[in-house]
Amino acid sequence: MNQLEESISPGELSFDSQGLLPAVVQHAVSGEVLMVAWMNAEALQRSLETGEAYCWSRSRGELWHKGATSGNFLHIREVWIDCDADTLLLKVIPDGPACHTGAPSCFFRKLEGLHAG
Amino acid sequence: MNQLEESISPGELSFDSQGLLPAVVQHAVSGEVLMVAWMNAEALQRSLETGEAYCWSRSRGELWHKGATSGNFLHIREVWIDCDADTLLLKVIPDGPACHTGAPSCFFRKLEGLHAG
Repeated sequence: MNQLEESISPGELSFDSQGLLPAVVQHAVSGEVLMVAWMNAEALQRSLETGEAYCWSRSRGELWHKGATSGNFLHIREVWIDCDADTLLLKVIPDGPACHTGAPSCFFRKLEGLHAG
Repeated sequence: MNQLEESISPGELSFDSQGLLPAVVQHAVSGEVLMVAWMNAEALQRSLETGEAYCWSRSRGELWHKGATSGNFLHIREVWIDCDADTLLLKVIPDGPACHTGAPSCFFRKLEGLHAG
C-alpha cells in the first residue's frame, strides 16, 4: 500500500448522465487488460455483494451477469476508482476467455498507423 | 503475436454518438493501468502521427495534448482496439506521474465494500 492509497465508498461515485460508469477489467495476476464494461449502480452493487462482475449492456439495455451464458465468470479481487471518481478498475481472476470471440482479452487487434515516438 | 492477433485501421472504429472513444492507458512495461481518457477522431489522428497521447477533454470541450502543461507526456508504444471497435488500449511510456494529483496512476483509491468471491 503506497502512501497515496485511500479508500472511497460507492455513494461517492460520479455516474454519467446515463447513470453509467466505465469499468476497466484487468487480470489480477498477469496485468493484462481484458475488456472495458459499463456498470450502473445496480450492477456495481451486485458486483460488490457477490464478488462476480455484473455489467450493464448498453446494446441490450439490461443487467448482465458476465459468464451467465458462457460460464466464464469474472471473480473480482479488488476495485479501484480514479481521481475523478467516474471510472472503475476491476482486478479479476477470469474463469476463461473474457471475450465473446474466445480470445483471452477483447483487445486482440492492433491499430495500424502509429508513428511511435 | 498470437494467432488471434489481427490489425484494424482507424477508419473502422466505432465512435460513440458524441464522436468519442474511451482509451485505457496502460504502462507498456509494468502493465499498470494509468488512466482512462477520451479521444475524438482528431485526437486519435494526432496521437498516431506524433506517437504522443492527445485526448479530448470532456470537461473543457477541447483537444488536450497530455503533458503540455505538466511536462508528463505519454509516449505511445502500441494501440490496441477491442472486439466491438469502440474502445482503445494504449500501451505507453510515461514521462512522469500520469495523474494530475501527482500519483503515478489515476487509480490510487480502493473502493470499499467488496465481498470477494
